[in-house]
Amino acid sequence: MEEIQVAPPKIGEVRVKIICTSLCHGDISFWRSESGPFSFFPGIFGHEAAGIVESVGENVVEVKAGDLVLPVVQRNCGECRDCKFKGNACTKFPAASLNAMPRDGSSRFLDKDGQPLHHFLFASSFSEYTVVDMTHLVKISPEVPVDKACLLSCGVTTGVGATMKAAQIEEGSTVAIFGLGTVGLAVAEGARIRGASKIIGIDKNLEKFEIAKKFGVTDFVNPTSCGKDSVSQVIREMTDGGADYCFECVGSTSLIREAFDGSRQGCGKTVILGADLHGSPLSIHPLEILTGKSIMGATLGGIKPKQDIPHLAQKYLKKELRLDGFITHEVNFEDINKAFDLLLQGKSLRCIIWMDR
Amino acid sequence: MEEIQVAPPKIGEVRVKIICTSLCHGDISFWRSESGPFSFFPGIFGHEAAGIVESVGENVVEVKAGDLVLPVVQRNCGECRDCKFKGNACTKFPAASLNAMPRDGSSRFLDKDGQPLHHFLFASSFSEYTVVDMTHLVKISPEVPVDKACLLSCGVTTGVGATMKAAQIEEGSTVAIFGLGTVGLAVAEGARIRGASKIIGIDKNLEKFEIAKKFGVTDFVNPTSCGKDSVSQVIREMTDGGADYCFECVGSTSLIREAFDGSRQGCGKTVILGADLHGSPLSIHPLEILTGKSIMGATLGGIKPKQDIPHLAQKYLKKELRLDGFITHEVNFEDINKAFDLLLQGKSLRCIIWMDR
Ligand SMILES: [Zn+2]
Ligand SMILES: [Zn+2]
Ligand SMILES: [Zn+2]
Ligand SMILES: [Zn+2]
Repeated sequence: MEEIQVAPPKIGEVRVKIICTSLCHGDISFWRSESGPFSFFPGIFGHEAAGIVESVGENVVEVKAGDLVLPVVQRNCGECRDCKFKGNACTKFPAASLNAMPRDGSSRFLDKDGQPLHHFLFASSFSEYTVVDMTHLVKISPEVPVDKACLLSCGVTTGVGATMKAAQIEEGSTVAIFGLGTVGLAVAEGARIRGASKIIGIDKNLEKFEIAKKFGVTDFVNPTSCGKDSVSQVIREMTDGGADYCFECVGSTSLIREAFDGSRQGCGKTVILGADLHGSPLSIHPLEILTGKSIMGATLGGIKPKQDIPHLAQKYLKKELRLDGFITHEVNFEDINKAFDLLLQGKSLRCIIWMDR
Repeated sequence: MEEIQVAPPKIGEVRVKIICTSLCHGDISFWRSESGPFSFFPGIFGHEAAGIVESVGENVVEVKAGDLVLPVVQRNCGECRDCKFKGNACTKFPAASLNAMPRDGSSRFLDKDGQPLHHFLFASSFSEYTVVDMTHLVKISPEVPVDKACLLSCGVTTGVGATMKAAQIEEGSTVAIFGLGTVGLAVAEGARIRGASKIIGIDKNLEKFEIAKKFGVTDFVNPTSCGKDSVSQVIREMTDGGADYCFECVGSTSLIREAFDGSRQGCGKTVILGADLHGSPLSIHPLEILTGKSIMGATLGGIKPKQDIPHLAQKYLKKELRLDGFITHEVNFEDINKAFDLLLQGKSLRCIIWMDR
């Protein structure tokens, strides 16, 4: 814990008072990157959060002081070809790097010695105040409890969003989910909402199975007890030929391969949601794809944050989307290391970290 | 040319008098497989054709003698989970091999010495008569001229179908097509129908460009004159970041890679339509997919033959789908070798081979 200086927002930027934040696997991946292009030290991590607008820079009209907002990794300017058309890869600041403000590439943080600190994924929410570009901020109804809103900032939206936007699961589909962390369980919740007929959860951690049932998971595979069969073989048997949708939520190339092999001949979609910054390439023969399978990826589930996150919030308020079960722990900001321990030990889904309680 | 015996149709089968057939790259790929699992000698090739029902076996109610029918490689029983749900990989005869009748694995052909001959892709249309399983036969309106109907049996349907079913191109999309043979030009025709804003054709054969304009191709790239830039780089420049849809219609792993690299960050779909039976695997890093790209394949464009081919035929009759330009040559059956020469030399799109004229 260190005192820092947070500069006022510049043009198109907003200074946000973080109310609560939570820890996502993305933080851990980058935190572990001690060298290389993904190493952002010294810097301020954290990207799943909810906060209140403290002040706005020039040209910001979308929010005002006091609004409930969520930082989002996925940019959404609303003006570029991609924001207006399809997908969710906003092309407003093509040269933006993940460790600075997107508009001018500089930092709004100074450490106690007056040295600039790296930003992180356009959010840097492990701080009482942060500065976020307006293109990375979503305004949300104050009716949504702030801790539930926080969940919609990254992990849960990634999983639920992927079932609706990236994969577009149809009623009656069979779904296999590799990895029952928050993203995987959010996929299950989304698949349940969309009427999937079978939702298979795959995880080595048996404790996840009881929790997973509450999110709609109907069947389980423990990869360590498949005997001589591969997980993909077991899935093909459970689904009479392969699952319509296989979601990889871990970030392992060998699991992506299992997911692909477990996906249905002729129509099976493999959706990559997990990221391994240092993983190996995937090798697939074109003939394996030719017969109708597909592989796709999605950041933030393929949703457009400014239109789709408020929509998910409404679904929560209407009790169609269940969020409560994702919050397994809560700590105060000074105990943030406990949140890291819990996630690394696989004991938590989301641990809400309250900044000021 | 040899006299053969064609047995009467068994249960669920139909004996068809072929009126005309044409040559598709699929025939050439298998014809060149002189050994290995895809070698079907001695056998009867040909799978793109139109014919008239001569007689039907037991349990066949869908067609009767005199009906105009097309053999299709893609099975469509209409009863299995996949036929009823999504995709087009019918699971009715899972053990069927490509060189025999699908229902019982035997042959309906005997050569002049009484020895059985291999079937080919459930069609074997290089014969005056053939026997086709009902699940591989599409009945079509007799209003459609038989040579145009023949086109809908494989290549044109693959390309046009892929724009509608597999890729589902939206109005305003940018499209890049690798390989301007019949399938590639059918993709162009489909993309035009769906309102694509830019349709880029990529081919080493400059003669294709003039023809391609008639099918809606708006821009051209000759890979041999890109200088030090890769084709994917050129496509990214022409589309301000990558094409929304890249279709690979050649069957080359390195072209699939170019197509993927030329596809748009965040939403670009690479659609594999070309098959290389002996090609090398594709290597892609999961992070390249994670950001929202996808790769998919489609046999027969992802269409369900019995519902979608009659629909394409109607589109032709309503002059929405243009078929005439695909027929560049016509020969009599005894000159079939000329059709091979023309296709191998890149001089023809489709050469209609008339059986009895
Ligand atoms: Zn995250
Ligand atoms: Zn944008
Ligand atoms: Zn079927
Ligand atoms: Zn063909």
